[in-house]
Amino acid sequence: MKKNVLIIGAGGVAKVVAHKCAQHNDELGQIAIASRNVNKCRAIIDSVTAKGSLRQPAELKAYALNALDIEATKALIRETHSQIVINVGSAFLNMSVLRACMDTGAAYLDTAIHEEPGKICETPPWYGNYEWKHLAECQEKGVTAILGVGFDPGVVNAWAALAAKQHFDQIDSIDILDVNAGSHGKYFATNFDPEINFREFTGQVWSWQSRQWTSNSMFEVKRTDDLPVVGVQNLYMTGHDEVHSLSKHLDVPNIRFWMSFGDHYINVFSVLKNLGLLSEQPVKTAEGVEVVPLKVVKAVLPDPASLAPGYSGKTCIADLVKGRKDGQAREVLIYNVADHAEAYAETDSQGISYTAGVPPVAAARLIARGDWDAGQMVNVEQLPPEPFLHLLDEMGLPTRIKDEQGDRPWDQ
Amino acid sequence: MKKNVLIIGAGGVAKVVAHKCAQHNDELGQIAIASRNVNKCRAIIDSVTAKGSLRQPAELKAYALNALDIEATKALIRETHSQIVINVGSAFLNMSVLRACMDTGAAYLDTAIHEEPGKICETPPWYGNYEWKHLAECQEKGVTAILGVGFDPGVVNAWAALAAKQHFDQIDSIDILDVNAGSHGKYFATNFDPEINFREFTGQVWSWQSRQWTSNSMFEVKRTDDLPVVGVQNLYMTGHDEVHSLSKHLDVPNIRFWMSFGDHYINVFSVLKNLGLLSEQPVKTAEGVEVVPLKVVKAVLPDPASLAPGYSGKTCIADLVKGRKDGQAREVLIYNVADHAEAYAETDSQGISYTAGVPPVAAARLIARGDWDAGQMVNVEQLPPEPFLHLLDEMGLPTRIKDEQGDRPWDQ
Repeated sequence: MKKNVLIIGAGGVAKVVAHKCAQHNDELGQIAIASRNVNKCRAIIDSVTAKGSLRQPAELKAYALNALDIEATKALIRETHSQIVINVGSAFLNMSVLRACMDTGAAYLDTAIHEEPGKICETPPWYGNYEWKHLAECQEKGVTAILGVGFDPGVVNAWAALAAKQHFDQIDSIDILDVNAGSHGKYFATNFDPEINFREFTGQVWSWQSRQWTSNSMFEVKRTDDLPVVGVQNLYMTGHDEVHSLSKHLDVPNIRFWMSFGDHYINVFSVLKNLGLLSEQPVKTAEGVEVVPLKVVKAVLPDPASLAPGYSGKTCIADLVKGRKDGQAREVLIYNVADHAEAYAETDSQGISYTAGVPPVAAARLIARGDWDAGQMVNVEQLPPEPFLHLLDEMGLPTRIKDEQGDRPWDQ
Repeated sequence: MKKNVLIIGAGGVAKVVAHKCAQHNDELGQIAIASRNVNKCRAIIDSVTAKGSLRQPAELKAYALNALDIEATKALIRETHSQIVINVGSAFLNMSVLRACMDTGAAYLDTAIHEEPGKICETPPWYGNYEWKHLAECQEKGVTAILGVGFDPGVVNAWAALAAKQHFDQIDSIDILDVNAGSHGKYFATNFDPEINFREFTGQVWSWQSRQWTSNSMFEVKRTDDLPVVGVQNLYMTGHDEVHSLSKHLDVPNIRFWMSFGDHYINVFSVLKNLGLLSEQPVKTAEGVEVVPLKVVKAVLPDPASLAPGYSGKTCIADLVKGRKDGQAREVLIYNVADHAEAYAETDSQGISYTAGVPPVAAARLIARGDWDAGQMVNVEQLPPEPFLHLLDEMGLPTRIKDEQGDRPWDQ
């Protein structure tokens, strides 16, 4: 039974997390938001207040925090009596926030893998380079750390666990399909931090095929799927966190991640990449200013949070699972469809932030209840998927399943 | 009779200027090269020595100079006893170098209009904003200042004067056509300073039509021409210096500038422009580094000088002049074709630098001889074109003419 939540970060996902925590503050207790820029925290609190998201009357608190400062983070965890920390700040912060949690005993949750500024697409499995180095210490201290509990990674990992448990005796392949069929109406924008977004695509694309790590380049491998609601989409094999944990925890020889891209996105990305403007390595201008090109690209692109008011259309994220059950070959699509405008109406946020921000709050509720208070470091596929998917059904992200028996809610 | 040349700048054009001055140092006297980066000056001198470009034995001298520092520039003009200054440094330097010349009595030559870092595509006529404010002072002091004496502006202005003098009683239109049909083999590169190159295209496109300034945007107006040697080319109306002086000095109702672009160039340019990466206004990264996006783009692009060794193909620059002579409508194409590989063999430079760098040396020779030592500030079309075109014929940039009588050297 843990309570009181500290949210680290004040971007689009943090905003959704704050709204959703507020909607369940009867279970979660006090809510604090901390970020380098305290004004962004205050703006989120204003949004929570304006939307009337709080279930019980309470005061959300805003704090200025550089979460790379471990001692400051520990002090804030203690000051706010937070037993649950939801880290939805920059991916560069994971290791320092995790350290603060391990030292204070607070439960740790994040939604994306740790990254180091000067490195991209490191050796697989990615979790082995940073997070999993702390498996033993978490176990020893009984610290609950749930890694990658957004949508993807996160919900898609729970679906994989569900497929293995309920739908298959043997799984041959899991293809995670991530489609954003929404439109933000801008010339070009990324749906979350452009720096993290582009870093995903500029290095090697790692996939798990025939039980081996396989390397491709971005936009090299394409597939076309006809998916529920969003229809026919082009998807490209992409490097992504969940491949790196599912390949360890599930006995599945082929695990791949695919993301939808339009031709316009690919063109803009290709121009920027070929020119060297997506590099994470600094360059020097003729005037002697040293700067990382990718950070300049980020500075000129729209703030992902600013896309929310005009965003229309839907997302569809799915696990396409193939294997055998009772001696028969079968294929199951487990999926969710979310709507940008509905996300905005509920949380002042666009659909990509919504799908990433709701699941960690469901996980926090399960920690508060004790169901998922694992007392160790885990990825989502290591936890029982059912309570998580039931909570998400009622929190705005219902899971559906499509197989030879039709298209229906996952638990029917 | 003036002599001793100070070259300001050490980029691709300056290198050609140095080679060509060396080839005519019997007329021009001592040659000095000054730039912020003295090592670039030394590299040019090494190239001149290695190619054996000096007609008479002499020692070229290299100097470190910030040409925005007027007093330092004046001191260097005096120290080197330079009576001719060829300014082929950044376009931001014109006004300070001109001031140094007006104060010392040295003749001033440049190849492109003055620009201020924070402004692009100002009110026409552009010369009126900076250079022409010093018309009276040059006249009073008898200072020779020849503005824009590269190829375009420069040679194309001389051709316009030639057309008005020899080929037409009345000119209806001058269309300046600038085609680079060469290939540098890189994904993307600009042929001269990317910062200056892109600044030409990001603002309004000014043209002189029906005796009025007309504004379009870049890539809005296209034409297709079948030109000598380079064949069929797509050209786009572009803002350019010469339109701003020819419209004042010649009685011609329509003067337009057109530049050839391939689809790939337009795509890269459009992506960068639409994202805001060609902006001359600083942005701030999330980490607080303030930087001008255009300068970052410049930093990641190939140095134009580095393109020279692999450059193949040809350029074709032309004046297409339409009007009446002896009561008859006629059309004349005055043009030059230059070859990238030949330019490299002679001067270690690519063809765009070559076409821009040879004409100011021809002009310097005419000043040394007294033919063009105007004792005032002029644009090229105000000077007699014949001696200039004759010199260029023998210096590597022959002028040809194509009309109803065929395709032939201009003076036959």
